Amino acid sequence: MSDKITEFNDYRAKMNDRILSDDNKIIKRIFNLDTNAFQAGALDVKTKELLGLVASTVLRCDDCVKYHLETAYKSGLTRAEVVEALSIATLVGGTIVIPHLRRAYEFWDELEATEA
Amino acid sequence: MSDKITEFNDYRAKMNDRILSDDNKIIKRIFNLDTNAFQAGALDVKTKELLGLVASTVLRCDDCVKYHLETAYKSGLTRAEVVEALSIATLVGGTIVIPHLRRAYEFWDELEATEA
Amino acid sequence: MSDKITEFNDYRAKMNDRILSDDNKIIKRIFNLDTNAFQAGALDVKTKELLGLVASTVLRCDDCVKYHLETAYKSGLTRAEVVEALSIATLVGGTIVIPHLRRAYEFWDELEATEA
Amino acid sequence: MSDKITEFNDYRAKMNDRILSDDNKIIKRIFNLDTNAFQAGALDVKTKELLGLVASTVLRCDDCVKYHLETAYKSGLTRAEVVEALSIATLVGGTIVIPHLRRAYEFWDELEATEA
Amino acid sequence: MSDKITEFNDYRAKMNDRILSDDNKIIKRIFNLDTNAFQAGALDVKTKELLGLVASTVLRCDDCVKYHLETAYKSGLTRAEVVEALSIATLVGGTIVIPHLRRAYEFWDELEATEA
Amino acid sequence: MSDKITEFNDYRAKMNDRILSDDNKIIKRIFNLDTNAFQAGALDVKTKELLGLVASTVLRCDDCVKYHLETAYKSGLTRAEVVEALSIATLVGGTIVIPHLRRAYEFWDELEATEA
Repeated sequence: MSDKITEFNDYRAKMNDRILSDDNKIIKRIFNLDTNAFQAGALDVKTKELLGLVASTVLRCDDCVKYHLETAYKSGLTRAEVVEALSIATLVGGTIVIPHLRRAYEFWDELEATEA
Repeated sequence: MSDKITEFNDYRAKMNDRILSDDNKIIKRIFNLDTNAFQAGALDVKTKELLGLVASTVLRCDDCVKYHLETAYKSGLTRAEVVEALSIATLVGGTIVIPHLRRAYEFWDELEATEA
Repeated sequence: MSDKITEFNDYRAKMNDRILSDDNKIIKRIFNLDTNAFQAGALDVKTKELLGLVASTVLRCDDCVKYHLETAYKSGLTRAEVVEALSIATLVGGTIVIPHLRRAYEFWDELEATEA
Repeated sequence: MSDKITEFNDYRAKMNDRILSDDNKIIKRIFNLDTNAFQAGALDVKTKELLGLVASTVLRCDDCVKYHLETAYKSGLTRAEVVEALSIATLVGGTIVIPHLRRAYEFWDELEATEA
Repeated sequence: MSDKITEFNDYRAKMNDRILSDDNKIIKRIFNLDTNAFQAGALDVKTKELLGLVASTVLRCDDCVKYHLETAYKSGLTRAEVVEALSIATLVGGTIVIPHLRRAYEFWDELEATEA
Repeated sequence: MSDKITEFNDYRAKMNDRILSDDNKIIKRIFNLDTNAFQAGALDVKTKELLGLVASTVLRCDDCVKYHLETAYKSGLTRAEVVEALSIATLVGGTIVIPHLRRAYEFWDELEATEA
């Protein structure tokens, strides 16, 4: 793992633990739904990951984009598939999405670089 | 076609013609990209329609949702697949999406009712 | 009830039934959370209704605003309290909120008019 | 004036009176600022109207778009200038803006039709 | 004060001074309204702080969330009350709010840590 | 150039090259439109830059704001003109825009400081 990916995942894991330790019923159930929603059903996991990625991109949430890029990568989605999904997000969401596209590309490149 | 679907499509077609007759280069190209972006590539048409639907839903654009529901329907996507995509949009976008979910269900029901 | 309030509630109830009959686990749980989140806890019901109202207003969701205006009204919140919450929403969300403020006022007036 | 323009303006005027009669200090001052902000200063009125129009369009507020189209029209801005501003809004805001573009075109056509 | 809180407040104060020194009438009055809107009226200060916090959270503005967390903390709101408000914001705004929730928790923990 | 401006531009240029090297037709054309849309037409370059700036500000995209501040600066727009445009963005977009206004002021000050 690159330092940036590790740092992102560590902060995410640490703060999720912190939030869940507070035992707020609503928040815990939303976190739980977030896990369930992306499991295979009528749609397969890869399609769902792309849906999560596009939703995160048009809503311009960098951390959400990174999270879905990593799960997309682990699910076996190719760069070509991910880029095509991001192109739809950029068209629908407008040029305002472009700065998030830059950071998405950078993160995906780091994910690919961890392979070697 | 139900009256609501016909009315939606007629207004859309009429105003698109009106906009394109103005010959603004930027707007014409964006309309053109909108057609290209949803054609088969690394991702198939059905997956792209679902991406367009989820992007439209989390951005809470009723007309865009209707448009993608109709193209999704015509591409052969099933109700189960569409509902699963909408469930991800509702989770990511929050309960603020629910009024749009109601109108999406209503429109999909009309699409199915035109079959008989 | 005024016709507008009745029409709003009837459509809402009809489509909620339609959505829930589809038995999508994610959507059902989100609907369920929506009921739980506004029950008394560390914060009382009135405060939570105001939070739901302000969230709906700055996100500019007319149907959500109407829903929370009605529950706010039933919980005993006064016009003065509701207007003050709406004023914060207008300041935080900007003048883009004003058209929604107009419709919120109209709906609240109808809620008050049903009392006589 | 066309019926649609008259209806839009009448509702707007009626509800603004209703809101201001409530005498909430914050809301009254925001309404007041809204008048001041579009008066000539370092930028002329036409430029400011275009800024208000583009802000309203990318934030996808139909009523705000209509309001600024009417003031833009009255300030002497031409169709070509307004369309060019709307093309920037569509590019920056994405295809999600297109349904609002349709309604903007329709309203501008009605404004022009009142001239004869 | 922790370093992070001090750094946040110092930058905020420095840039507010810079902005206000420019003497733009519209901006100055908006800053002024921002102070007035959160003073006690029909609603008490604590309720208003929660409204500001929830509006900031669903609009996903980290700096606004931090500002309202600090004023909420100073007004005597408890962690339980703040978390319950944040849970409503997360439900209404969707999982896209979660990254902001992580940073809100981190900031609140720092506020509590300054007490000792 | 100040270090911050140089760093911003270098990252932007590097990642744009990276994105365009991927040869996605949709993304490339959107980048291309972005260049065309801000060239002189019915509206002059300065007016278009202000439109891009206000759109970026109300949509709260810091990188887009910085980009348009720099092109605005290079096009000869004065501080007074830019601040007046930002004041409209703050009024329309609400106090949620203020953190972005702080960063916009800081970046403009750096642009002016590079002149000496």
